[in-house]
Amino acid sequence: MGLLETINGPADLKALTPAQLPGLAQEIRDFLVESVSKTGGHLGPNLGVVELTIALHRVFDSPHDAIVFDTGHQSYVHKLLTGRHDFSKLKKQGGLSGYPSRAESDHDIVQNSHASTALSWADGIAKARRLRGERGRHTVAVIGDGALTGGMAWEAINNIAADKDLPLTIVVNDNERSYAPTIGGLADHLATLRTTRGYERFLDWGKNTLSRTPVVGGAMYETLHGMKKGIKDIVAPQGMFEDLGLKYLGPVDGHDEQAVESALRRARAFGGPVLVHVITEKGRGYDPARQHEGDQWHAIGKFNPETGLPFEVSGRIWTDEFNDEMVAIGAERKDVVALTAAMLIPVGLDGFAAAYPDRVFDVGIAEQHAVTMASGLAYAGLHPVVAVYATFLNRAFDQLLMDCALHKAGVTFVLDRAGITGSDGASHNGMWDMTIASVVPGLRLAAPRDGDQVKRQLREAIDVTDGPTVIRFPKGDVGPPLAAVRQEGVVDVLHETSTQTCELLLVGVGAFAAMAVDIAGKLEAQGHSVTAVDPRWVLPVSDDLVAMARKAGAVAVVEDNLVSGGVGAAVTLALREADVDVPVHVHGIPKRFLDHASRGQLLEEVGLTADAVATSLATRLR
Amino acid sequence: MGLLETINGPADLKALTPAQLPGLAQEIRDFLVESVSKTGGHLGPNLGVVELTIALHRVFDSPHDAIVFDTGHQSYVHKLLTGRHDFSKLKKQGGLSGYPSRAESDHDIVQNSHASTALSWADGIAKARRLRGERGRHTVAVIGDGALTGGMAWEAINNIAADKDLPLTIVVNDNERSYAPTIGGLADHLATLRTTRGYERFLDWGKNTLSRTPVVGGAMYETLHGMKKGIKDIVAPQGMFEDLGLKYLGPVDGHDEQAVESALRRARAFGGPVLVHVITEKGRGYDPARQHEGDQWHAIGKFNPETGLPFEVSGRIWTDEFNDEMVAIGAERKDVVALTAAMLIPVGLDGFAAAYPDRVFDVGIAEQHAVTMASGLAYAGLHPVVAVYATFLNRAFDQLLMDCALHKAGVTFVLDRAGITGSDGASHNGMWDMTIASVVPGLRLAAPRDGDQVKRQLREAIDVTDGPTVIRFPKGDVGPPLAAVRQEGVVDVLHETSTQTCELLLVGVGAFAAMAVDIAGKLEAQGHSVTAVDPRWVLPVSDDLVAMARKAGAVAVVEDNLVSGGVGAAVTLALREADVDVPVHVHGIPKRFLDHASRGQLLEEVGLTADAVATSLATRLR
Repeated sequence: MGLLETINGPADLKALTPAQLPGLAQEIRDFLVESVSKTGGHLGPNLGVVELTIALHRVFDSPHDAIVFDTGHQSYVHKLLTGRHDFSKLKKQGGLSGYPSRAESDHDIVQNSHASTALSWADGIAKARRLRGERGRHTVAVIGDGALTGGMAWEAINNIAADKDLPLTIVVNDNERSYAPTIGGLADHLATLRTTRGYERFLDWGKNTLSRTPVVGGAMYETLHGMKKGIKDIVAPQGMFEDLGLKYLGPVDGHDEQAVESALRRARAFGGPVLVHVITEKGRGYDPARQHEGDQWHAIGKFNPETGLPFEVSGRIWTDEFNDEMVAIGAERKDVVALTAAMLIPVGLDGFAAAYPDRVFDVGIAEQHAVTMASGLAYAGLHPVVAVYATFLNRAFDQLLMDCALHKAGVTFVLDRAGITGSDGASHNGMWDMTIASVVPGLRLAAPRDGDQVKRQLREAIDVTDGPTVIRFPKGDVGPPLAAVRQEGVVDVLHETSTQTCELLLVGVGAFAAMAVDIAGKLEAQGHSVTAVDPRWVLPVSDDLVAMARKAGAVAVVEDNLVSGGVGAAVTLALREADVDVPVHVHGIPKRFLDHASRGQLLEEVGLTADAVATSLATRLR
Repeated sequence: MGLLETINGPADLKALTPAQLPGLAQEIRDFLVESVSKTGGHLGPNLGVVELTIALHRVFDSPHDAIVFDTGHQSYVHKLLTGRHDFSKLKKQGGLSGYPSRAESDHDIVQNSHASTALSWADGIAKARRLRGERGRHTVAVIGDGALTGGMAWEAINNIAADKDLPLTIVVNDNERSYAPTIGGLADHLATLRTTRGYERFLDWGKNTLSRTPVVGGAMYETLHGMKKGIKDIVAPQGMFEDLGLKYLGPVDGHDEQAVESALRRARAFGGPVLVHVITEKGRGYDPARQHEGDQWHAIGKFNPETGLPFEVSGRIWTDEFNDEMVAIGAERKDVVALTAAMLIPVGLDGFAAAYPDRVFDVGIAEQHAVTMASGLAYAGLHPVVAVYATFLNRAFDQLLMDCALHKAGVTFVLDRAGITGSDGASHNGMWDMTIASVVPGLRLAAPRDGDQVKRQLREAIDVTDGPTVIRFPKGDVGPPLAAVRQEGVVDVLHETSTQTCELLLVGVGAFAAMAVDIAGKLEAQGHSVTAVDPRWVLPVSDDLVAMARKAGAVAVVEDNLVSGGVGAAVTLALREADVDVPVHVHGIPKRFLDHASRGQLLEEVGLTADAVATSLATRLR
């Protein structure tokens, strides 16, 4: 029997001797590689935080102390150490979540997998506990260097640093990358901290800094001038955080468990906000995961633990269509540039980046900046393509509205993982993008139904110069091309019972166009006359679609988006404004958060299958 | 004839001798005080940037060079120097906008008055121009120290600093406050920069920093230990920005025009990103504006320029009702805390802050942090009230959804300036708040119809512990109490033609409840049977309202929100889901950006008056 099996909570962990810990760490790594090879999941990030997580649970007293993990995909070790050993159904329906989950354990606090939030949570928790007089309860936030590029982390640091006696420990888990290698001035600064361990480096750095010393008007000028001439100067490398008033400890070797414990104990005892800078290696202890420079190993499907190779090579996915077409467009249009928020490969911009490296901008986990920067790029004559996961556009709603749309900036947004994604849980589903897009004046949104349409509509979007466009498509395999039987204006008719009568006009949005054809067939078999269409550009609702609705007995919309807002609501509003009085039936995702499960299971659960929709519509048509 | 009248563009300004500039600055100040005393507007911020703006337009070549003003309420001087001298209708329909406006001038680039965006705009513009080979075109962003507390400014700095040869100048206009005094670690750091002009301060600061030097495990320990003992150390105060890789110039006296010019010329010549730290005084040269420590003088109504006193003392406003009730609630409920994003007085938290200073958190211009921090406060047992302008909730949509609602955090949001605000233009209207709130699972939203309801519903909201609540009310005077004639379940019936038949169920949302009563009267006079109701909690739609709709011939909703999404759309959806087949007529704000004008003019323009709605509904009821 191994050590790991005996750990059912932090108390068991605290009972171990330091000499036992390396063995435990090895057991945890073996378990993770073996287990994640069967289920898929975030392997690299968790292999990197084994010693750090052990140290956290030995120094702090969870759940009496609060440990908040930013993003949360690195919480597998935490789950193991708090008694959750059954990883057999990780990220599957009924199994463990891939992120912290309050439903699983009192040790879990934040289950939002959107990055850069942990410091704000921790600030709130720490301040509440102090106000309630709960002395001795400590708060810890664990955040990656990548997540520190997100603006709200800075907002939090700015507030935390100003509160000199707030018992809060910020652990920066610095593995030099977020999903992709971390970008920006902060990354450079952290790199400086990492490399200036020796005295010589300190001297060089100080000298270098002084050679850049500004020369300005006023009293400052004299002072700095005097300094340059007369004094031997050294700049402490922790400067940046300390300048903000935050005590800095580190850097600490994140794989030296005792060193991490020691730093955390000092932080805990300090009595004010402390930043502990821990250097870890993503994929530590498993060569296939460690050797990858890119982000392929960040989150993976099932793989062979011996070779590190995936078992199944996936088919062609939606992302591939976008990736390829961007390369082609880039050759033709020198004004097209691309932006990603630390997700170059997952969003499919690696092809474009390889071909046109000077025309791609990875801004870090900074969607707000990406959207506004894109507005600036457009103002100055380029056409930016901002590629993000659909769920992360929520981070930049204000910028989409106020920077991009208000200024009529020709910016194309490409939303991957739109609709239900499933296994990553509530916060990774792209359920809100069409809803928020539908209220942005001047915005046009396309939901391509197949790979060909991704390419065509991307080109159509890039030709738009007077406002934002959005192209959204789901996660996973792209189906076969779905041809139109004819066009009616801008609307593609995919299936038609009769050209004379139309009992039901069935609007299939994006990947659901195929489902709409399926539903049409089922209803037709019951004697109904159905026209299934793909409006292609679903927002705003086209006059052609309104005209078709006017001649139909009823309209139905099937969409992979929240039933509130979205295309169904937009169609309802457009028909009302055009005085078209036909019933509209909207089949979308109900307004609630969805538990993790497969996409198929969730679509079934919410009634978004051809059978379920056809059955429901049949009762409406009688 | 004064100098100012001869300035029709930057070229005229450049032709002046340095000796003429103090006179010009005085003329500009006189003009601003005189002019804003008649129209109202942002006086203090503009008085503070007179010399800075003169220097910007003498050093840079707008519009060939791009000058981007963050927030933009400090652009009056810029308007004057670019030939816009008629301020007589400032912020009024047909007059100058209170912010930059592309429709007014090629010198204006960003007309979004939401803070912290300028650096992202500038990053995009500068990178586009470099890519397009437009050498010699410089980009300048002017941002206040307050706006630097916003996270997206940090996202931008992180990206700009990493690009060593980007010709971009960041001017930090440091007046030690945003709307309220700037809060946080950054403010402390800027204060340090401001005060360390003398050599002695440098020495103290260095000593102080070293006394806080961290003691940690590893090689770092030895190094730092050695440093402490043996070496005379000084930490350069510009450390933080330089640590990020950004060249720092300053601090410069922002009222010494020649010193500012000198710093800007150096920045322009540098060939890479530079931060110029300019110290200014808000309200400079006008004692009434300068003496106020609070934010009363940030944006003002008409006032007497001699005394600085407002001409009209306004009546009781919606904000006052909230302000008073928070003080009362604070005495009864020790667990209630309040958060503001640099807007303590405008949102009406000054009463609470005075009474319970340890229970109010001003987080800076950091709505994202505010919402997530509130979720943390709620997790740890407090009930936070987050008070923001409605338009700024857009900044934190993701946090509202993923931190607050997903975690069922009992947080109350109080949205002031909801609906059309008017004179501040497109980006200050609170047109989107009910739309985004309506798609958040578990969120309850109340739109109080009068001051009594503000108080009652605030208390009801604070009793909710299992999810977010929103209270939203408009800008301006609160009307007289509007009594209900009876309750039907949770719905307040305000007017009823008949208890037997109901041709039209008219839903008045919030302040529009009074308009609904008015409309009901007009329709009744035409022989219609109308029931006007205030649902009080408008989201989610109550079963009681659905039941009333089921018995009505038609439903109409009047709301001060975008017609897409919002209460009308939610009612439509609720009726559809309940199989209630009655027509729903929604009267709200159309999906477009509104130009600046008075609230009354805009309501008239979009057809949201009792007359217009009654006329429209009358044709529907026939």
